[in-house]
Amino acid sequence: LPKNLRNLWFEECDSFYKNTRLAIKEVLYAGESSFQEILILNTFEYEKVLVLDGDFQSSEKDEYVYHEALVHPAVIAHPKPQTVLILGGGEGATLREVVKYPDIYRVVMVDIDEKVVKLCQQFLPSYSSGAFSDKRVKLLFDDARKYVSETEERFDVIISDLTEPFPDSPSYFLCTQEFYEQISHCLNENGIFVTQASRLDCLNWVIHSLISNTIKQVFKEALSYYTYVPSFGDRWSFKIASKRERVLTALTPQLIESRINQRLGAGLKFYDGITHQGMFSLSKDIREKIDSQTLVLKDANPQLLKEIYQKKLGTYL
Amino acid sequence: LPKNLRNLWFEECDSFYKNTRLAIKEVLYAGESSFQEILILNTFEYEKVLVLDGDFQSSEKDEYVYHEALVHPAVIAHPKPQTVLILGGGEGATLREVVKYPDIYRVVMVDIDEKVVKLCQQFLPSYSSGAFSDKRVKLLFDDARKYVSETEERFDVIISDLTEPFPDSPSYFLCTQEFYEQISHCLNENGIFVTQASRLDCLNWVIHSLISNTIKQVFKEALSYYTYVPSFGDRWSFKIASKRERVLTALTPQLIESRINQRLGAGLKFYDGITHQGMFSLSKDIREKIDSQTLVLKDANPQLLKEIYQKKLGTYL
Amino acid sequence: LPKNLRNLWFEECDSFYKNTRLAIKEVLYAGESSFQEILILNTFEYEKVLVLDGDFQSSEKDEYVYHEALVHPAVIAHPKPQTVLILGGGEGATLREVVKYPDIYRVVMVDIDEKVVKLCQQFLPSYSSGAFSDKRVKLLFDDARKYVSETEERFDVIISDLTEPFPDSPSYFLCTQEFYEQISHCLNENGIFVTQASRLDCLNWVIHSLISNTIKQVFKEALSYYTYVPSFGDRWSFKIASKRERVLTALTPQLIESRINQRLGAGLKFYDGITHQGMFSLSKDIREKIDSQTLVLKDANPQLLKEIYQKKLGTYL
Amino acid sequence: LPKNLRNLWFEECDSFYKNTRLAIKEVLYAGESSFQEILILNTFEYEKVLVLDGDFQSSEKDEYVYHEALVHPAVIAHPKPQTVLILGGGEGATLREVVKYPDIYRVVMVDIDEKVVKLCQQFLPSYSSGAFSDKRVKLLFDDARKYVSETEERFDVIISDLTEPFPDSPSYFLCTQEFYEQISHCLNENGIFVTQASRLDCLNWVIHSLISNTIKQVFKEALSYYTYVPSFGDRWSFKIASKRERVLTALTPQLIESRINQRLGAGLKFYDGITHQGMFSLSKDIREKIDSQTLVLKDANPQLLKEIYQKKLGTYL
Repeated sequence: LPKNLRNLWFEECDSFYKNTRLAIKEVLYAGESSFQEILILNTFEYEKVLVLDGDFQSSEKDEYVYHEALVHPAVIAHPKPQTVLILGGGEGATLREVVKYPDIYRVVMVDIDEKVVKLCQQFLPSYSSGAFSDKRVKLLFDDARKYVSETEERFDVIISDLTEPFPDSPSYFLCTQEFYEQISHCLNENGIFVTQASRLDCLNWVIHSLISNTIKQVFKEALSYYTYVPSFGDRWSFKIASKRERVLTALTPQLIESRINQRLGAGLKFYDGITHQGMFSLSKDIREKIDSQTLVLKDANPQLLKEIYQKKLGTYL
Repeated sequence: LPKNLRNLWFEECDSFYKNTRLAIKEVLYAGESSFQEILILNTFEYEKVLVLDGDFQSSEKDEYVYHEALVHPAVIAHPKPQTVLILGGGEGATLREVVKYPDIYRVVMVDIDEKVVKLCQQFLPSYSSGAFSDKRVKLLFDDARKYVSETEERFDVIISDLTEPFPDSPSYFLCTQEFYEQISHCLNENGIFVTQASRLDCLNWVIHSLISNTIKQVFKEALSYYTYVPSFGDRWSFKIASKRERVLTALTPQLIESRINQRLGAGLKFYDGITHQGMFSLSKDIREKIDSQTLVLKDANPQLLKEIYQKKLGTYL
Repeated sequence: LPKNLRNLWFEECDSFYKNTRLAIKEVLYAGESSFQEILILNTFEYEKVLVLDGDFQSSEKDEYVYHEALVHPAVIAHPKPQTVLILGGGEGATLREVVKYPDIYRVVMVDIDEKVVKLCQQFLPSYSSGAFSDKRVKLLFDDARKYVSETEERFDVIISDLTEPFPDSPSYFLCTQEFYEQISHCLNENGIFVTQASRLDCLNWVIHSLISNTIKQVFKEALSYYTYVPSFGDRWSFKIASKRERVLTALTPQLIESRINQRLGAGLKFYDGITHQGMFSLSKDIREKIDSQTLVLKDANPQLLKEIYQKKLGTYL
Repeated sequence: LPKNLRNLWFEECDSFYKNTRLAIKEVLYAGESSFQEILILNTFEYEKVLVLDGDFQSSEKDEYVYHEALVHPAVIAHPKPQTVLILGGGEGATLREVVKYPDIYRVVMVDIDEKVVKLCQQFLPSYSSGAFSDKRVKLLFDDARKYVSETEERFDVIISDLTEPFPDSPSYFLCTQEFYEQISHCLNENGIFVTQASRLDCLNWVIHSLISNTIKQVFKEALSYYTYVPSFGDRWSFKIASKRERVLTALTPQLIESRINQRLGAGLKFYDGITHQGMFSLSKDIREKIDSQTLVLKDANPQLLKEIYQKKLGTYL
């Protein structure tokens, strides 16, 4: 037998009938906060990874893909982004991407779980790269919905990096029409909203389509986009929305390139004009499935999600 | 404990340090041919799947994604496709896509493993959907390299659906410059060649980049493209090449739509103009990695692949 | 990668927190009867194995250990065994051991599941070795409790090879005091009863101790014994009971040897006088745990088992 | 999904075709010494466990079974045990059992791996229960073979708790005839030697039979015994040997009980006269297999073990 004995494994249930296993070098942290179970692992395949309530969140080796995909289309889509609100994003990597823009002078980040934020700073420092000590940043530990409904501040860009809505979980109320209306209310006139919106492929599209259809009820313009994230084993999706029309569809690769040059100087690792075009050109089967969704998530019917999951046991649970 | 006890699992080693497991309803076939071990399984997650030498090949539920992505860009790119050569593709689904075009009057398919072809016809009939009995089709059981080097026939489109090159395997000689030169020789003047070209993401790009750089030595124009295939858990890539310049880059979504309408009448499930644009718009990090490759696969240095694998143990093996 | 790819696995949940996996060569049968899910597998480690409702039952390579241990102490303990009743034992191996005795002129076997019996004859013929066609054997497909409560026949030896009692399952009523009283009623004056009695070790002793204490309420003499069965990964236990006193404790290794010689001529593979002494000499910790049990399983309180399981989640479920 | 998500697992390869998995609460230590890889885990099933080079060593919940079985038959068999040598036994539990005897005034323990000893004291304090600070104990960090060949001290009892001999490992030389002769030389006239002697069942008996036959070449009397250890999933064996004849076979349950009373006062948890009788009464199939072994392990042929393993791949590796 060789060394590197592969005796310790992290196992994630992708569904009732499928799971993925990663060999572990080291368990950096295993414990829980008031809100969730937390694992920080050093894996052979992806180096350091974060796991919350058994759900793989991100890996050191490729988190830049997810976080660039989440942040930059929204910031670039805005004509003059200066203030940003981040909901969730405890790892600090969403914040790291936002503070790259010198013209953004105020960033509010609201995450419910202080413990996750502290543990990520300690064990995954490359995620935030010092962004938490940027003077433009105000970090609040609070419930995202509560903050959004109470604040009087208005933002140019709001980025939601909240976890998946699961049945029988308060996270349902972070993807309802009422929540998105509150978000819209917190945006300035040219405001852009973006949210991660679950995995999206021809076999797993229901959650995205529900979020998508719900957001469309609230905003003038809304587009779905996606990218593959290797350590997820999934293609992850996002929904971007604008308070005004023809802002998102007007983004050509050339315009994106020119705004990146103006606003950032140096380029990014993942995102540019062609990357944007690839992410926003969904395949035909996926477009049809998203368009087929007619249900809207509302505060009044939290059981909706449960019913959908139950019909699809094996695919979603 | 509920019924559906999930006692039988298929486990695939994605790498030395990662594996994926699927619960099995039924083992439809488990045996071997002269060339490989063959499993045909009925899984809860993806229904029927084919596994060769322990490598997941495709699932009934989403094989259309891979096979449409492999076939249609090449056929559509050709100004007047009438004859097609398929190398490999034993499942019959590549053939099924090709025979959808009424103007293609001759298809030669060369697969080394008669047993796989017969088993797929028996257990996975939806894959070929009767294409093997199409009168335009000539099916040969032979080594692809041998056929290509000996035939005097010329084709408009050549589609390679051969399995991955593994170190110390004869499959190496199915991705060398010499092989691609033989393929080019079998193509008519406007000929288009396409091949599956391994998984492709920011952590697994070396095999694609080698195939890509090798093909670029032989053809006037060559492009990489990719799409996510859910049951692979991977984003899969292809390399398409043309004997003439400015054929592939000239394919706009509009031109693609118009050719699909003319040549096929009805649309496809996955592929159309926007799908094409999405697949060919690679993200920035991937483009840079592919472009960084300078090695070329040649018949004379089969040990090259082994050396590359060995350096990356854990990622590739 | 070598051949024998180990892609197919049988996974058994030993508890909520422990499982065992066996690589599979071949799935000989996967289906269900009216009573249970049935798997017959060919494994690399143990050759052919039978699995019912996800519970490993026995393997071709070592089933002789379990079946000799179940049958021979009871038959040898009886002064003149001529008639035997087998409850359960669908595999046919219990029957095979019983018909080895020429002086036993009548054997009734009652199993609820005809399908399991037929499948075992087809796929596991070495288990019954032709015993089902022995003229002394009468095979009935019926519920064991119903048969025992209704029959007017009396037997010298009754052997219970019924499956484990699980909470919320009718099998509970196959290990209650009332059932054992019915069994006692079906025994002749010198009658011996034996039953498999679950795994038994210092961490898993509750089920055995309940069966043990319940049987002690009914019979004049009752002893626990156990043996390790490699393919179970567990030490399996049995409870033997006599309608008269000082029958079981009178069995010295010498007496056992002499009865084996008289009654069987040739010896057995596993069982002899010393084997008997080893199986009946329980270790001190186990004896103390069995003796500590005061509860009795009665028809009136089926929820008892459930309560016990729930307290021990992780050990029993 | 409930809490206790069972995302972290320890997986042990029992053979090429079988493995066992335990859900982990906590990784207490994961690292390596100069000699081996070390894991100390807190598992749901067995609480704290020690793993060396991927081999499960013992669990807090049932280590008393193994350690009482290893120590007490040898000490009790000796007419007047006063000095003991322990080889290996880094966890300290073997030592804990030895120091229970007030009349033993000197114990030398020789373990090669200081790091394991220190880690066990820190993370598994219940194993040694303070025995390392007993004034009668002399702890040496040295190679067992080197110590035995060099020391001029003589002992009443020698206890070998060394790890399994694996092919191509120096551990081979800790189970050869030459080593056992050196041990015999270190024993006083009435000396007793005992060693753990691998798993032992009808499918896994070769290693035991080799150790057994080798020891028989050196000592006047030698007996095999075994007991099931739940957390091993295996029945573990031992070989006890005496420099004089009819010492071991003279141990009746009554004599054992009386010596335990005299020498220890209070009883033990696992070991007593009946336990002894159970452990030493091997089943018929096992006795025949042990007796069938004719090979002897000698310093000159270390390749012997390798050849045996290779023939049995799947059972031993």
